[in-house]
Amino acid sequence: MTPRDAPVEETPHPTSGLNDVVHQKARLGILAVLAETERADFTYLKSMLDLTDGNLGRHIEVLAGSGLVHVEKGYAGKRPRTWVTITRAGRHALAEEMAAIRELLRRFEGNEPPTP
Amino acid sequence: MTPRDAPVEETPHPTSGLNDVVHQKARLGILAVLAETERADFTYLKSMLDLTDGNLGRHIEVLAGSGLVHVEKGYAGKRPRTWVTITRAGRHALAEEMAAIRELLRRFEGNEPPTP
Repeated sequence: MTPRDAPVEETPHPTSGLNDVVHQKARLGILAVLAETERADFTYLKSMLDLTDGNLGRHIEVLAGSGLVHVEKGYAGKRPRTWVTITRAGRHALAEEMAAIRELLRRFEGNEPPTP
Repeated sequence: MTPRDAPVEETPHPTSGLNDVVHQKARLGILAVLAETERADFTYLKSMLDLTDGNLGRHIEVLAGSGLVHVEKGYAGKRPRTWVTITRAGRHALAEEMAAIRELLRRFEGNEPPTP
């Protein structure tokens, strides 16, 4: 056991590099799906990510507000349909999140459980 | 571009495997630091994770409420000090989160950008 009681590291923990807008579970899911499909409709995202209408709508709004996705409303035949597309900034933010969690994972895997 | 408009996959997206209690940025940081140090005091966590008193306290409460950390109040000389220890359940939950983000990363890295 190595109790720590005083700041000893100057560099912040890798989790400090995580961006809440992108890291949040539902939003990370939305961006990850869109990175694969380029654009997807509301119904597809809802089913892929197992989210309610309200929840998905709210998280898409946050992402759109940060310029990470673009929302288009249109029709498929007579049925209204909402399309969501990932923007360049969205791809960039997702890549940064993935780099941050890769770093976190590397640190986690490099740490053996402390010996007593 | 591969637009998707209907559910085509039966298996949920890897982000569905993320547990909000552990995935949330500050709480993930707390657990990751504690996994390395076994236990840490409030001040150390605050400085490592760049959190305010209120924020750190709130997230520790959530983790303690789920049995993932254990909180002990004591003294170092005359100064009150709060120690936080990761529990077995906390180590397990962190390992599951790391497995989920490893899967997410593998999927992200395995996906080439879609060709037009």
